[in-house]
Amino acid sequence: MINTTYKKMLQGKSIIRELSEYATARGQEIGYDHVFDYSLGNPSVPCPQDYTDGMIELLREEDPVAVHGYSPSLGIESVRRAVAESLNSRFAMDYEAKHIFMASGAAGALAHAFRCVTSPGDEILTFAPYFPEYGPYVNLSGAVLKVVPADMENFQINFQALEQMMSEKVMAVLINTPNNPSGVAYSTETIHKLADFLEGKQREYGHDIFLISDEPYREIIFEGADSPYVSKFYDNSISCYSFSKSLSLPGERIGYVAVNPRCRDAEALAVMCGQISRGIGHNCPPSSVQLAVAKVLGQTSDLSVYETNMNLLYDALTGMGFQVVKPGGTFYIFPRALEEDAGAFCMKAKKYDLILVPSDNFGVPGHFRMAYCIDTEKVKRSIPVLEKFVREEYPGRRS
Amino acid sequence: MINTTYKKMLQGKSIIRELSEYATARGQEIGYDHVFDYSLGNPSVPCPQDYTDGMIELLREEDPVAVHGYSPSLGIESVRRAVAESLNSRFAMDYEAKHIFMASGAAGALAHAFRCVTSPGDEILTFAPYFPEYGPYVNLSGAVLKVVPADMENFQINFQALEQMMSEKVMAVLINTPNNPSGVAYSTETIHKLADFLEGKQREYGHDIFLISDEPYREIIFEGADSPYVSKFYDNSISCYSFSKSLSLPGERIGYVAVNPRCRDAEALAVMCGQISRGIGHNCPPSSVQLAVAKVLGQTSDLSVYETNMNLLYDALTGMGFQVVKPGGTFYIFPRALEEDAGAFCMKAKKYDLILVPSDNFGVPGHFRMAYCIDTEKVKRSIPVLEKFVREEYPGRRS
Repeated sequence: MINTTYKKMLQGKSIIRELSEYATARGQEIGYDHVFDYSLGNPSVPCPQDYTDGMIELLREEDPVAVHGYSPSLGIESVRRAVAESLNSRFAMDYEAKHIFMASGAAGALAHAFRCVTSPGDEILTFAPYFPEYGPYVNLSGAVLKVVPADMENFQINFQALEQMMSEKVMAVLINTPNNPSGVAYSTETIHKLADFLEGKQREYGHDIFLISDEPYREIIFEGADSPYVSKFYDNSISCYSFSKSLSLPGERIGYVAVNPRCRDAEALAVMCGQISRGIGHNCPPSSVQLAVAKVLGQTSDLSVYETNMNLLYDALTGMGFQVVKPGGTFYIFPRALEEDAGAFCMKAKKYDLILVPSDNFGVPGHFRMAYCIDTEKVKRSIPVLEKFVREEYPGRRS
Repeated sequence: MINTTYKKMLQGKSIIRELSEYATARGQEIGYDHVFDYSLGNPSVPCPQDYTDGMIELLREEDPVAVHGYSPSLGIESVRRAVAESLNSRFAMDYEAKHIFMASGAAGALAHAFRCVTSPGDEILTFAPYFPEYGPYVNLSGAVLKVVPADMENFQINFQALEQMMSEKVMAVLINTPNNPSGVAYSTETIHKLADFLEGKQREYGHDIFLISDEPYREIIFEGADSPYVSKFYDNSISCYSFSKSLSLPGERIGYVAVNPRCRDAEALAVMCGQISRGIGHNCPPSSVQLAVAKVLGQTSDLSVYETNMNLLYDALTGMGFQVVKPGGTFYIFPRALEEDAGAFCMKAKKYDLILVPSDNFGVPGHFRMAYCIDTEKVKRSIPVLEKFVREEYPGRRS
């Protein structure tokens, strides 16, 4: 009979998707140029030309039976080795191919990481503000997601709240830095403090607590940001990566799990990912994409547009009197709304064809997210519209 | 803490993989030309040139942000529509785009289908001989796989055994036609009889029983075979397809779920697949591969080599006195071994560098599988070796 859990989920609607669909419909009505769509986190810059050239070369020069053939269940060995070497040279780690599991994007990587280190009923803690898909990602794995309230000052970690929510049932802590939706990167100090805290709790409880680090924005870091490589600070850590944002390949479903070589049972964990795959129908990222990505490891798309856009928006928003924590990376910014009800705020903005996402779904009230992975020219044109919206809707709030 | 279910699975070894690894190692030792590796079901013919050309055209001519962009969670709309139309024109069905869910290969498609129509603890029946990965595929979804013993005469369906194993707990029946490992296609008569049986049981139990049809070999059909399109015969049916074999793209992870439009809640089922994806980390097949495959729907690789190989082997094996059910499709053949212990039989064959897979893992004793997706020249050279093996190891059995 039809599964009721999944059927009931159909009633829930994603506010982000609804806003994005509205923006598209509105664009068809008045011209897409006039809709300032800050709803979706879709890369707006092309992949590196070397990726395209490398893929064409594979298709032209190599044996198609090999290029399109089954990948081993943990990924193509040469690709896993190349990923390990790339991470080692960039972050002074000691990965070997055996610590790398090629996954179909960060969603695939996380699905494996959660199942590796939890059993049904175990808890995973994450920190607000957080990517709302973590809810179904974790809860449908059988584990239970609990969200630690935000550090509202700077969107680092609220350690007091963490201490209160930590218990023996917590088997993993999930972080996302640089962060969607805040754009904030956890500082060296924050990661150090988190690592110390978790080490203490491991000793206290007598069991492992894994740190799962979701890092799709790792390469989108702005000038002056302190954004260290998480796994350097804590042995029982698992890094989940996607090339979606750094290479602008979100649809190609390519990423990896990198198990810290110093982690408990490090070698078993990567192999376990292959077993988990059998149950969830994940049979490796596309073979040709694995091979093509391996040719451009260390490269990125031209990500500079995101920093340009961030600076434009940050200056404009602070100039208008918004309270904003300055992003250290990503293509998101997460200002405080001009009224307590973020939903009402964003509804008012919609009248000006400004598509902003209210913060409630991210586990924080009274804020809104702007995904500024759009043309700089459009960001510039949106600023007077933002000013008009604020002036007309919140006349008393203007500085 | 590390999950014990998955960790324990590491102890289990796949006999097929072990044999394949042995064949590779042995090939490095004595030259791969001298190893007759019938272990693995990997397509041996290239994808159509039109696929390669179509992909290069996409990469060269189209906007990379669009080609590599996120796919909607049910698949790219134009691709879903093209798949529906292709199925309609070939099989006189009434699919619309809304009935199609693009999945990362048959494994991805099955992972969704199982979760759509069962809840944890429900039973799924399948029929021996069967693809052994169905075990982890089903059991790790929370449902329970039960295997109906084989019809040993012709590898159609043993309806007497099915009647005995059917119960109210069975929410789905899983078939694979043409079949891995037997190569047999279920006849129109078999599918009709199965549909009638399931309709009767639906009425008797007062609940739906879904027929999940795993069809990666649908296009590899040999002359004279009766291999009807399953969903024409039973309303509550879900077709799971992969392009791995028909287009020789197993590593690219591209296939689909096609929900019968006459199925209970047909529209909800496809949308539910999108919800299931959130939990299992499946975020669509690669976008560029969806677009490139849509350009060659209805085409296949040159699959004729498989029929050539099958005829060579079938004639040779029957000539040597083997009992063999003639395959109607696929690239497998499943003869009876010359002793009861299929493992012992295959061990003896290994001494002749004939790599055969014993049948026990497929749920049938005393047989062996040959995957003849290899060069015809090599099949020809293997025949005198097979003859020598039989003559020397089973002198009394030679006719």
